[in-house]
Amino acid sequence: MERLFSKLNDSYNDMVEIRRYLHQHPELSFQEYQTAKYIERFYEDLGIDVRGNVGGNGVVAKIHGEKPGKTIALRADFDALPIQDEKDVPYKSLTPGVMHACGHDGHTASLLVLGKALNEMKASLKGTYVLIHQHAEEYAPGGAKAMIEDGCLEGVDAIFGTHLWATTQTGTIQYRTGPIMAAADRFEVTIQGKGGHGAQPHKTKDGIVAASQLVINLQQIVSRRVNPIDPAVVSVGSLIADNAFNVIADKAKLIGTVRTFSEQTRDFIESELEKVINGTCLSNDCTHDYTYFRGYPAVVNHGAETEFLIECASHVPEVKIIEEKEPDMGGEDFAYYLQHVKGTFFFTGARPEGVTEAYPHHHPKFDFDEKAMLISAKTLGAAALKFQE
Amino acid sequence: MERLFSKLNDSYNDMVEIRRYLHQHPELSFQEYQTAKYIERFYEDLGIDVRGNVGGNGVVAKIHGEKPGKTIALRADFDALPIQDEKDVPYKSLTPGVMHACGHDGHTASLLVLGKALNEMKASLKGTYVLIHQHAEEYAPGGAKAMIEDGCLEGVDAIFGTHLWATTQTGTIQYRTGPIMAAADRFEVTIQGKGGHGAQPHKTKDGIVAASQLVINLQQIVSRRVNPIDPAVVSVGSLIADNAFNVIADKAKLIGTVRTFSEQTRDFIESELEKVINGTCLSNDCTHDYTYFRGYPAVVNHGAETEFLIECASHVPEVKIIEEKEPDMGGEDFAYYLQHVKGTFFFTGARPEGVTEAYPHHHPKFDFDEKAMLISAKTLGAAALKFQE
Amino acid sequence: MERLFSKLNDSYNDMVEIRRYLHQHPELSFQEYQTAKYIERFYEDLGIDVRGNVGGNGVVAKIHGEKPGKTIALRADFDALPIQDEKDVPYKSLTPGVMHACGHDGHTASLLVLGKALNEMKASLKGTYVLIHQHAEEYAPGGAKAMIEDGCLEGVDAIFGTHLWATTQTGTIQYRTGPIMAAADRFEVTIQGKGGHGAQPHKTKDGIVAASQLVINLQQIVSRRVNPIDPAVVSVGSLIADNAFNVIADKAKLIGTVRTFSEQTRDFIESELEKVINGTCLSNDCTHDYTYFRGYPAVVNHGAETEFLIECASHVPEVKIIEEKEPDMGGEDFAYYLQHVKGTFFFTGARPEGVTEAYPHHHPKFDFDEKAMLISAKTLGAAALKFQE
Amino acid sequence: MERLFSKLNDSYNDMVEIRRYLHQHPELSFQEYQTAKYIERFYEDLGIDVRGNVGGNGVVAKIHGEKPGKTIALRADFDALPIQDEKDVPYKSLTPGVMHACGHDGHTASLLVLGKALNEMKASLKGTYVLIHQHAEEYAPGGAKAMIEDGCLEGVDAIFGTHLWATTQTGTIQYRTGPIMAAADRFEVTIQGKGGHGAQPHKTKDGIVAASQLVINLQQIVSRRVNPIDPAVVSVGSLIADNAFNVIADKAKLIGTVRTFSEQTRDFIESELEKVINGTCLSNDCTHDYTYFRGYPAVVNHGAETEFLIECASHVPEVKIIEEKEPDMGGEDFAYYLQHVKGTFFFTGARPEGVTEAYPHHHPKFDFDEKAMLISAKTLGAAALKFQE
Repeated sequence: MERLFSKLNDSYNDMVEIRRYLHQHPELSFQEYQTAKYIERFYEDLGIDVRGNVGGNGVVAKIHGEKPGKTIALRADFDALPIQDEKDVPYKSLTPGVMHACGHDGHTASLLVLGKALNEMKASLKGTYVLIHQHAEEYAPGGAKAMIEDGCLEGVDAIFGTHLWATTQTGTIQYRTGPIMAAADRFEVTIQGKGGHGAQPHKTKDGIVAASQLVINLQQIVSRRVNPIDPAVVSVGSLIADNAFNVIADKAKLIGTVRTFSEQTRDFIESELEKVINGTCLSNDCTHDYTYFRGYPAVVNHGAETEFLIECASHVPEVKIIEEKEPDMGGEDFAYYLQHVKGTFFFTGARPEGVTEAYPHHHPKFDFDEKAMLISAKTLGAAALKFQE
Repeated sequence: MERLFSKLNDSYNDMVEIRRYLHQHPELSFQEYQTAKYIERFYEDLGIDVRGNVGGNGVVAKIHGEKPGKTIALRADFDALPIQDEKDVPYKSLTPGVMHACGHDGHTASLLVLGKALNEMKASLKGTYVLIHQHAEEYAPGGAKAMIEDGCLEGVDAIFGTHLWATTQTGTIQYRTGPIMAAADRFEVTIQGKGGHGAQPHKTKDGIVAASQLVINLQQIVSRRVNPIDPAVVSVGSLIADNAFNVIADKAKLIGTVRTFSEQTRDFIESELEKVINGTCLSNDCTHDYTYFRGYPAVVNHGAETEFLIECASHVPEVKIIEEKEPDMGGEDFAYYLQHVKGTFFFTGARPEGVTEAYPHHHPKFDFDEKAMLISAKTLGAAALKFQE
Repeated sequence: MERLFSKLNDSYNDMVEIRRYLHQHPELSFQEYQTAKYIERFYEDLGIDVRGNVGGNGVVAKIHGEKPGKTIALRADFDALPIQDEKDVPYKSLTPGVMHACGHDGHTASLLVLGKALNEMKASLKGTYVLIHQHAEEYAPGGAKAMIEDGCLEGVDAIFGTHLWATTQTGTIQYRTGPIMAAADRFEVTIQGKGGHGAQPHKTKDGIVAASQLVINLQQIVSRRVNPIDPAVVSVGSLIADNAFNVIADKAKLIGTVRTFSEQTRDFIESELEKVINGTCLSNDCTHDYTYFRGYPAVVNHGAETEFLIECASHVPEVKIIEEKEPDMGGEDFAYYLQHVKGTFFFTGARPEGVTEAYPHHHPKFDFDEKAMLISAKTLGAAALKFQE
Repeated sequence: MERLFSKLNDSYNDMVEIRRYLHQHPELSFQEYQTAKYIERFYEDLGIDVRGNVGGNGVVAKIHGEKPGKTIALRADFDALPIQDEKDVPYKSLTPGVMHACGHDGHTASLLVLGKALNEMKASLKGTYVLIHQHAEEYAPGGAKAMIEDGCLEGVDAIFGTHLWATTQTGTIQYRTGPIMAAADRFEVTIQGKGGHGAQPHKTKDGIVAASQLVINLQQIVSRRVNPIDPAVVSVGSLIADNAFNVIADKAKLIGTVRTFSEQTRDFIESELEKVINGTCLSNDCTHDYTYFRGYPAVVNHGAETEFLIECASHVPEVKIIEEKEPDMGGEDFAYYLQHVKGTFFFTGARPEGVTEAYPHHHPKFDFDEKAMLISAKTLGAAALKFQE
């Protein structure tokens, strides 16, 4: 492990360089052609076994240790976001309206350099190291599902992944057994009333009144129907009934999201939504279309692998704080990997020392402490090596 | 007519005396045994054809003019209210908790004295004068319906009635063609949820939340579904879900009233109520009992008879103002008479000159200007005589 | 009057021709340049005293009877609507997207021909006849106000106007004393919450929830706060909070209309709206912008002039039904004229015999029975002549 | 420990006898005079150092080991509930309307017998054993606070307590570090509107409509304003506006409960309640009284002591399952002890084998598996002994 850490220390400048290159050349989800090619070429140039176009733009490299052992997968995502980079730094995005505003560039740089180091040590390594470079994490249905279907987890015994987190202090590793990120679903409801003149409500069925009642009634799903100790969110994000002032709305369209940690609660809310929509429309004499789209499931970490990761993290000199993370209602398609193999997803603090308030992820001025890439590489690397013990 | 007015003038003191006696001896609806007996005896003592126990405690007297003519009915109600008299006057109610707080004592005194005067003039009168002294106006199902079923309108060509009105200036007669008072219905809804501990909403169906939603949703019946120019009221008067603080309500009971002027709107609201209750309960996964009780229908005055009454009122010297009345959302079982024969119901101002704000009807300090009894007697008397022309 | 009616009968074909020409050449409110010119020239060609550009595109012609008398104004509006004509008739609109879908072409043709007839009779006429051809009735602030300010009512003793009504049977004249059309106002509310991620409601102030509550709470203004016999409407016609599904709305914009018949109720609702908005925003910890724009006031017909009009209509042979009209919650800037001089606004049925369901006004297939133009001309003409008696 | 377990086994019949005696003689919170006397006498008869009237009806016994050591407190509560016992067993409550429906009789019997056993072993014991028999757990402000103020924790190094749990299988011990039971607060709101006649909403301020809006608006506190991963409950348990059907409510009274695990969230909800009440009343033009009564704080178990208890439980032969408990939104005044000294509160399963659905606590047919008393005594006993190691 010392040897690996030392190699990583030596390659830190490469890591930074790679990250900044990627930062300048971000690509949107499902359109990450150049980034995929860049990754593929990186491994090819080192003579590493690499496969492109895995489940789309995914890239999977494999380092075969020369001794027999288990197979461990490490995952980094590499897509960017439709956000205009507003930072004033030399490595600012060169693509207008597209930006690595979530740190996936760092994930990628960190895993590439870790792969290079492991490859250099392969003569002494046991087992196999599967480096999963995943496209399209930001946009459902995501890249993970397709990569799994395309075989990226074949033979894999366990998987580990991390997210650099710009609002948590560098030197922190945050873990959690069980649900750590939520299932993130989407729903759409169109309420069909009967439009008419604003002065003649009695000849209409007011789509705006029905939609408003629905928004209010939906609040009860969380406040009354879900177990208070089972976190859940139902948010209507968009409500549109766009008409002239002297009209009564013919219809209204609502779009929202549901966040849950258990499949049972997820199913329950999907059906409660329907019940509330049905009742509200009946009361308002309106009809409706309701569609519930399942996004990523919850990221549910496995207990033993999480304990193992804590142990690994404790060997990384730069890690000062190892703490349990509160569950986060955001979504992550790392969830799919954990439905197939054991593993854990953890957070690597990436807020520079002395900074107290960093820009949050997805902010136009988002950035992160690059030193955290080294910590992430060492923690995943420690897991890779210790997993063979 | 001059002769009749003169007789009434001479009997004004009797009128006051009778009214005050009745005021001291009020009886609740359907329990007006002594009042009925008082009225009956009054007519008997004058040798007038009188029948008691008409449809209950009703009393009907008939004055037969000695010349042939039409039959006109005049109606006065005589029940009191369950209110404690708080006035400080010599003729204050002697019965605790019961009070003539709506002026029916005045209606009765006025009609009795008018009957006496007509009787004295019968040799010169044409036609028949039916004096309907009705019990139980204040409490549904009321006395009018039963009196009609017991024949009080037999042979009647037209009916007239008035209400003394303590907040309108003495000397005023208020008329209206078409609806003047509303249909007054009652509804009851019991929402059955599923009770439980206040800390465990997810194991319950919260009866209070469902009831609250229902109250809110019911507002739309008037605001959205009824034609804005068609007056209607839906009020929930009582809402009870009486539990400990740390409980979730098993059920909630709502009681309310609906006021309308047309049978069509009445039917419509009854069914819209059901629709809103059904939808709200469906949305809340609750069940319910819903009952709609029809009270008095709307008082709908006939056009020609209203015009006729205006004409008659113009002959009464004390009448200074004859004006159209706004429809009133209160109820009156005079409505039933008008479903059987032509006629009109009008208001006789009874607020003494100089008084600007009188206690409203049904108030514990309610009183009225006794001079209005004379005006009422003269107006009805004028109608009685002119009706034969 | 016989002579006038005879002249109008003879000119019926002209009336139709003029109407159809105007129908083919509709112009939007405040852009009726050619129509105004057409009207002006019509009078000029007849040597009639005419003034253009009155308060904008308005045109006022005056016929001076050769005998002394009173001054009566008759008004017809002439703007069209932004609607695509979908009728299949030879006189269909030639201007894409613009259509006389409310019958103002008929109003104009009717008044022009009446003007011509009166002019021919001027040697025998008393008084002065002011023919007000008004632009921009369909779009607030309307043309009436500006025309009045520009003097069109100077010296006028009374004004009369009518609306052809395609859903009421031809041969009907509908009148009403007092309010016949409503004040039509507009309000806008922008609720400013605090946006955020759909998974993190606790870091936001949900603009959609606040807006929905507001819509629901506004229902009470009509259902609870306004006198049930005083017709009023508060409608939210537009509600927009347009966001991604996984967002919580930063703000929401509501636009709506208020309809009332009395200035007191209008003021009251304007302030109640503010109260409800303030309270709802306080409860939701949001801020807001609220603006209330006053549109046309209510059209309030004068009693004597309405009685007079009924009398006049009874002389028109084609008028079979003269009936009281229910108040209509729509708006009309004829309201302004009645704030300055006595008069009445009435409706002239224009649904051909045998037709039971006509397309409503503002419908792309709207049309009306052209015979009604003759009835309208005769009724206004009768008023013009009888007014001098 | 073997010796203690053996003694407890031998005394099992005594335990049952004591429990059944107490079960037959239940006393309400703050009125447990005889029960307190019973406990006091029990210890006196054994020559054990006992003090009565501690903070009210509390009783504290102390066993002084003959060797030096630490001081450990064990707590059992002994009040009953205002519920009519509906069980059909020989030991059914003899007091009408009062019942040990929560198992406090079992807590007491278990601790008394454990105390006796420890006393018999005192020659070989280190340290001091404080047996806290607490009155009034069921009714705020509870007995714990007053007993602490009266010194029951003086010199105590750690405290342990348990609750027999009739719906969890016997043989189960449930623990949790951190919050295990919620802060349980109460609030009362009286909304003052302006009453009136049901037919005249415009002259009133409808208390029921305002109250209903408030109930609906309060749902958002949990659904929108509290962090979804921070469990919280706001329940309105009682809503009363008791009037005649044809009235508009002058006022409405709401009573409810708030449950939280952190003081920060507790403070937050208290103030959000006020904000929502203020806004809702402003919107409805009503005034209000709002009072928030703080009940027991959350029971927050200490980490090391919980780990210690798990270890102790593993030594009890009858304990088959040791599992983490989900936080419970119910309240317990054991919370106060943990604010002063380290310790943990755990649950002891008491559902007999083979039974799948037991009556819940506070049910008129509630009962529990008496064998669980032995398990509870052994687990607390193990803690007592091991604490001195």
